[in-house]
Amino acid sequence: MIAPNMATMLGFIFTNANLPSNVLQKILEIENEKTFNSITVDSDTSTSDTVLLSATRTANHVPINKYSDKRLKDFKRNVSSLMLELAQLIVIDGEGASKFITIKLEGASSTKSAKKIAFSVANSPLVKTAVAGEDPNWGRIAMGIGKSGEIVDQKKLKIKIGNFVVAENGKVSENYDEKKLKEYMEWDSIEIEINLKLGNDAFKCYTCDFTHDYIDINADYRN
Amino acid sequence: MIAPNMATMLGFIFTNANLPSNVLQKILEIENEKTFNSITVDSDTSTSDTVLLSATRTANHVPINKYSDKRLKDFKRNVSSLMLELAQLIVIDGEGASKFITIKLEGASSTKSAKKIAFSVANSPLVKTAVAGEDPNWGRIAMGIGKSGEIVDQKKLKIKIGNFVVAENGKVSENYDEKKLKEYMEWDSIEIEINLKLGNDAFKCYTCDFTHDYIDINADYRN
Repeated sequence: MIAPNMATMLGFIFTNANLPSNVLQKILEIENEKTFNSITVDSDTSTSDTVLLSATRTANHVPINKYSDKRLKDFKRNVSSLMLELAQLIVIDGEGASKFITIKLEGASSTKSAKKIAFSVANSPLVKTAVAGEDPNWGRIAMGIGKSGEIVDQKKLKIKIGNFVVAENGKVSENYDEKKLKEYMEWDSIEIEINLKLGNDAFKCYTCDFTHDYIDINADYRN
Repeated sequence: MIAPNMATMLGFIFTNANLPSNVLQKILEIENEKTFNSITVDSDTSTSDTVLLSATRTANHVPINKYSDKRLKDFKRNVSSLMLELAQLIVIDGEGASKFITIKLEGASSTKSAKKIAFSVANSPLVKTAVAGEDPNWGRIAMGIGKSGEIVDQKKLKIKIGNFVVAENGKVSENYDEKKLKEYMEWDSIEIEINLKLGNDAFKCYTCDFTHDYIDINADYRN
């Protein structure tokens, strides 16, 4: 039951930095889009999502009062990295998850479109069960892209699984070697890269596979 | 892999009526929205959907050339009924389906909104696993309504499962009897009725539950 927007989770991040709440809030909102709001277990959301970023302001430095202040560069990067780690741990802990999946969507005409397509693939039960079955079923990935309802040119489409280019310019890649790719599918962490070649916008999201344990946990929880 | 729009299916309907193709096409399109385009197994679509309505025109009557002709009333009703039966048979035959689910969405402010919310509930893995587990988990139904992104007033919301009013005006119904409702959940066909009380538009869709067999069929199909 995890597709934060925000969803079933309480996240608390503390720092001793001397930063006012408006700066913290802006950092949190921006980084949240790329971390907690970029994960999904099964597309289903919940009611009790919270991520707090709180500063004790005990660090010995002059307060920094602007989000754009260059001295915040490292701080932002570290908060982002911590939030991404926490968010990914939620996915790994998803009901019955046996594999971690990264969907990298590139070449979109807008970030909104990139996000919609990435989540359409990530939430597809057929993509998730194919990954559980360790099958490089790229037809299901193409289906997940198509059913998003976004405009896509299949003649431009490129699909990569791990380091293996599967389809390019709408055709199966000349170097496609299903046997090698099947070995890659046995890994615990699978990366699916999709390039629409329609623009410069991108979105990355994180999900997990769909296994028998997902059904056990969510169907038989009262027995 | 069935959420026609259109999806994985080939449907052929024949009649001997003396009707031109433009009338047949209009009847097909209108009835299709309420039948084949109102079913979903797992939200995933396919590439080879077809529904054909074909007339041999051998029946002995004067041709009817207008969709609005009143003499078509019975014909339309019968085509609709046949299409609904065929569409529902697809759901019953869904991968691993053990229960047939009807989602009746009423009181919406537009048909588009009604359709979006009905499919959001129908495609929720948590709703589908709860039905598989025979648990009247109406919180998951409320979640499915909420995650649609449509505007809903929870203080007006009414949720009925079978003949049992579960929640009304945003509160659990005074007559809610979980024990009785759990008995109903053991049936093969479950009806979920949602009234948003925001308008007069409605949409009905049909789906099935999510079971271990769904995972078997879609994860282990190459073993």
